[in-house]
Amino acid sequence: MQSCLRAPRSSGPGRACRGAACYIAAGRAQSARPLCGAGPGTGPAGDLYNMYKHDVKTGATNRMRSRGARPEGAGSADAGTRTRILEAARELVIEAGFRRFSIGKVAERAGVSRMTVYYQFGTRDELLRALFDHMAARGRLDRLQDVFEQPDPLDALEQFIDVFCGFWATDPAGMRRMRAWARVEGGGDEARERDRWRRQALDTIVRRIRERHAVPAEEGQDDVVSLLYALTSFESYEYLAEGGRSAAEVAALMKRAAREITGVGG
Amino acid sequence: MQSCLRAPRSSGPGRACRGAACYIAAGRAQSARPLCGAGPGTGPAGDLYNMYKHDVKTGATNRMRSRGARPEGAGSADAGTRTRILEAARELVIEAGFRRFSIGKVAERAGVSRMTVYYQFGTRDELLRALFDHMAARGRLDRLQDVFEQPDPLDALEQFIDVFCGFWATDPAGMRRMRAWARVEGGGDEARERDRWRRQALDTIVRRIRERHAVPAEEGQDDVVSLLYALTSFESYEYLAEGGRSAAEVAALMKRAAREITGVGG
Repeated sequence: MQSCLRAPRSSGPGRACRGAACYIAAGRAQSARPLCGAGPGTGPAGDLYNMYKHDVKTGATNRMRSRGARPEGAGSADAGTRTRILEAARELVIEAGFRRFSIGKVAERAGVSRMTVYYQFGTRDELLRALFDHMAARGRLDRLQDVFEQPDPLDALEQFIDVFCGFWATDPAGMRRMRAWARVEGGGDEARERDRWRRQALDTIVRRIRERHAVPAEEGQDDVVSLLYALTSFESYEYLAEGGRSAAEVAALMKRAAREITGVGG
Repeated sequence: MQSCLRAPRSSGPGRACRGAACYIAAGRAQSARPLCGAGPGTGPAGDLYNMYKHDVKTGATNRMRSRGARPEGAGSADAGTRTRILEAARELVIEAGFRRFSIGKVAERAGVSRMTVYYQFGTRDELLRALFDHMAARGRLDRLQDVFEQPDPLDALEQFIDVFCGFWATDPAGMRRMRAWARVEGGGDEARERDRWRRQALDTIVRRIRERHAVPAEEGQDDVVSLLYALTSFESYEYLAEGGRSAAEVAALMKRAAREITGVGG
């Protein structure tokens, strides 16, 4: 199971277990079992969330120990400092984008030394990755763990929409700016990668819907997944929220459209 | 008819004719006739395009003449200069956003004097508005004129999607950056206003679909329009184009989803 918690980033075709990618691959193979053969209650439930939550602890331990980076949650004082650093990082990216983002500026805003930031996170890229994980945790993307526990994949699709609408609603103004910064000056590879994971998860759900409900047709798979991918995006969330719809109302609207797009009826 | 070509910007509830807004209002009143009573072949066809194309000529003539701004198309040498200035403006906004956009910088890049830019466009805001009109012309949004000539509103919806996919496909990288700049530093009021016009046009089309096809239900009007608004956005275009779909393929996919969302069948 330990290896199953690794993020797909560290995976490769030759490895025995590919973590989140493993579950996705399982979906592609028309099976709900992860390829790594993890038992019930281990792999599948947690893997989708791990697509969004890079395993900083393992990554940092393996890669950063030699430079002095510290594993997550090593003490409550550390945990407080980590959170302060991550919040400072979040504010900085929202304000000024990725290009001007540096360990020094984050340290200054968090009121800690540069060495503390290095010690907790390692490199600038590791800190950015931890920031995206922090936002995922803040937006309760851990609830994705339940999505693949749903016996009916239509329920899984609806829950997937609820979880993402909840996530997009956490801080729309901040998310809007972060995504826009990534577009004007680059640096948003992490956001783009997580968008791709969202698409892969939808691909798995739609395959499971076909297994159970005989729609959509196999040849329509890619089109249906693309439409659901656009429908459940942050940008569509914002368009649908215009005019004062709550996150729950947007989710209800997305669910209705998702059923129509998938072909299971409104 | 002349007054009917004015953009909604200059309209108000107390005026006899409200141009594009007039047609939209006509749609709301369940009628395909513009409120200004323009005859066949005049108002309705041109008004939708005029929602996107602010009448720079009239605006500049009325407001700028005293400052020396010149009406559009006053000579072929002028036309060449205007285009050069507008292309310079476009490149500048794409590169550096709206905040650093100035008459001086545009003049420098176009290789003309500041006075030439003032003379042709008037203020910085007028130049920005002319830039959006220029992009609309470049992206063939003039084809929107045909949309409301369609006898069947379902054909109108499909043509609307074709026109917008063609527009989004003109310069996706440039549009992506311009929209992102507007999000990180403001200055995109013009883009947001044109997005609202897109939504209003969809509202009119959906009302006409209900008149002819008895779907969607009146109480679902706002939801259906919102979903079509998200579906036909630039951002959805980009999500659907991922994986190598052409503009025509994206349009075909949007049309299928639009029929399902509207309730007329796939």
